Amino acid sequence: MTTVRVLTGIKPSGTPHLGNYVGAIRPTVRASREPGIDSYLFLADYHALISTHDPARVQRSTLEIAATWIACGLDPERVTFYRQSDIPEIPELTWLLACVCGKGLLNRAHAYKAAVDKNTADGRDADDGVTMGLFMYPVLMAADILMFNAHRVPVGRDQIQHIEMARDLASSFNHHYGEHFTLPEAVIDEQVATLPGLDGRKMSKSYDNVIPLFAPREQLRRLIMGIVTDSRAPGEPKDTEGSALFQIYQAFATAEETAALARDFAAGIAWAEAKERLFERIDREIAPMRATYDDLMAHPQRVEALLRAGAAKARVQATPFTARLRAAVGLRPLDDLAPPPAAEATGTKVAPPVFKQYRESDGRFYFKLTDAKGHVLLQSTGFDSPKAAGQAVARLKAEGWSGSPDLHALLEAYAPAERIDAALALLREA
Amino acid sequence: MTTVRVLTGIKPSGTPHLGNYVGAIRPTVRASREPGIDSYLFLADYHALISTHDPARVQRSTLEIAATWIACGLDPERVTFYRQSDIPEIPELTWLLACVCGKGLLNRAHAYKAAVDKNTADGRDADDGVTMGLFMYPVLMAADILMFNAHRVPVGRDQIQHIEMARDLASSFNHHYGEHFTLPEAVIDEQVATLPGLDGRKMSKSYDNVIPLFAPREQLRRLIMGIVTDSRAPGEPKDTEGSALFQIYQAFATAEETAALARDFAAGIAWAEAKERLFERIDREIAPMRATYDDLMAHPQRVEALLRAGAAKARVQATPFTARLRAAVGLRPLDDLAPPPAAEATGTKVAPPVFKQYRESDGRFYFKLTDAKGHVLLQSTGFDSPKAAGQAVARLKAEGWSGSPDLHALLEAYAPAERIDAALALLREA
Repeated sequence: MTTVRVLTGIKPSGTPHLGNYVGAIRPTVRASREPGIDSYLFLADYHALISTHDPARVQRSTLEIAATWIACGLDPERVTFYRQSDIPEIPELTWLLACVCGKGLLNRAHAYKAAVDKNTADGRDADDGVTMGLFMYPVLMAADILMFNAHRVPVGRDQIQHIEMARDLASSFNHHYGEHFTLPEAVIDEQVATLPGLDGRKMSKSYDNVIPLFAPREQLRRLIMGIVTDSRAPGEPKDTEGSALFQIYQAFATAEETAALARDFAAGIAWAEAKERLFERIDREIAPMRATYDDLMAHPQRVEALLRAGAAKARVQATPFTARLRAAVGLRPLDDLAPPPAAEATGTKVAPPVFKQYRESDGRFYFKLTDAKGHVLLQSTGFDSPKAAGQAVARLKAEGWSGSPDLHALLEAYAPAERIDAALALLREA
Repeated sequence: MTTVRVLTGIKPSGTPHLGNYVGAIRPTVRASREPGIDSYLFLADYHALISTHDPARVQRSTLEIAATWIACGLDPERVTFYRQSDIPEIPELTWLLACVCGKGLLNRAHAYKAAVDKNTADGRDADDGVTMGLFMYPVLMAADILMFNAHRVPVGRDQIQHIEMARDLASSFNHHYGEHFTLPEAVIDEQVATLPGLDGRKMSKSYDNVIPLFAPREQLRRLIMGIVTDSRAPGEPKDTEGSALFQIYQAFATAEETAALARDFAAGIAWAEAKERLFERIDREIAPMRATYDDLMAHPQRVEALLRAGAAKARVQATPFTARLRAAVGLRPLDDLAPPPAAEATGTKVAPPVFKQYRESDGRFYFKLTDAKGHVLLQSTGFDSPKAAGQAVARLKAEGWSGSPDLHALLEAYAPAERIDAALALLREA
């Protein structure tokens, strides 16, 4: 089965509210559990440094957001869940991409242009208050996406341009250095669930109308009791249409529960009772998560351990892939510039490269490809069976290294692509 | 004795010629041997990616330039000699600095402005052909310098602005996050030795008048025989003034040798004989280096090993320093957000932090500072004697962590500065 790699970045800032939960966290967690999906989810803390110089806030938010996602059911065993700043390969790739990124591309970025327009309108210097972090951000985001060769990146409309830029940078790099990057696609959910806030407008921090996701039970009740309603008395039929209370209920309830509340609205349920029903319904879903969240917040070392494990998992890919990218641009070990061995110079037949298959103490099956001088050219990760390892070897022999890009995630290359291809060609001829 | 840290970056491009040797390599190598100088010298291969997309050339140049410097007497035991791309902390610091770097600062960079002016004059888009690598280069260079808190950076006049930018970025970071960076100073050598080339103009690749530093002996002779002279016959007195031949000789000879040649000029030495004398004099200095160079070029694995050892040495500083910088901006382990232990909450006296001194199997003396919960806050590198280790401990106790910045290079911090200071304060009170 083909696996689709889906990547989502989360900026660690602010305290999540019910609107974030319904609109982003819950659907993303659900999507990450679908079959055929290989989900990458990361805390964009390098990104957070652009907008704040408050270190305690960055640290605190990272903990809160990580704890929130885990509490909301993100499965760190299944999803690759990591902190951006734990992957040193990301800033390195950012530099490699900067070297194939025309400055003109970034001049046209919406976020940057908006800052310039505002400065110009206010009579200030165009770049006033614009940091290089802000200006370079699309390159960092491209590195985030391309590092894992993500196929799909779910984003809001305002982020489509960034995905296009990541595609541009991927194409530019591929053009100069060979096909290394998958071109990612933006996935726009046209029906993003938005939740009304306490005042009936969209729930948003900027309207100061939010219900914090993990407000303690009593605070949650108090906030829900404060949702704006019309002034119809108990007994009077009530409109579901336009009722913030009803819409919020609907976001949490089953179809049957929603239908039942609609009937009670028509039958004239008192607002206080409807609010109590809403509170209990939300709390039923949230309470177990809140318990997990509170527990994680009291034990940040657990969150830290999960994030470190996630980073280790991410780096199983990021480290060898970056080694290949480095080799592609010329940041290569110098060893392979050694002049040909005397044997070759005197015309003696050179020993061919060798594939060696073996089993490690972890019970998994590995192979490596070494050249005539015993230098390792390729090192595999662990396969479940000797057959799977053997099939990969067979395909490398038949198709070469450049001809089997889908195998690259399973292999660490210690030499430039041309050299591996040459060794495999030699093997084919032998 | 105070040690002055001097940092020099070398862009790996092109084949070095005699002019590079006399003007840059020889004086830099000599300066690196002076007492009181702690010299950092690196191959700027990330930088090279800005101007070329030819991977083989980057790799080849890196080898040639590294082999050249070692052959010319650079002592990798004494100097910290490394390849920029072996220090993953450099692109990471580049990002941290980008977040405190106003874009306006880079708009004013000479190299960028020159590109814009040329584009404008040619009727092209201002940013035509300008990559983000070029635009961001001053930030990368600042990271190179600030990573090792270099005091002095010897540069040409055209690079003074880059050092000023590094100072600006250091100040900006220090302003936001506390005093972490030393402000570097540009050192301009007003008497850079320039060498005339084959045609009498300054020796420069752009004039195509160079003598490659490690040209084989016979080629060196042939090239020197081609140096332009006037047409005075043997026996006619010759002018030393304006003679390229004489100036090149002077750059290699002792004062006595130079005076002797001046007398022979006056006495009417034949040009052919003068050239032969020049050739032998240069070859006397260069031949042993050429032998080393040829040997290194035939054994690139030795250069690779030297560069890796240099990177390991550089990272002894770069890794813990970057950990401190990360903590300063808020990229911190989450562990220390743990709520205070129950003991503290109930008013019981908390066990104080502890310094533990010990000796490792390498024969050196170490210490670490752990907090009441047994978390390591500080880990020292190895000291030569228990006394030296004890003195460092005593100073930390007396002056605190923030109060003893000169000790930071000897210690790896595993917690933010405030926490270490708090622990040391607790120790002082105990």
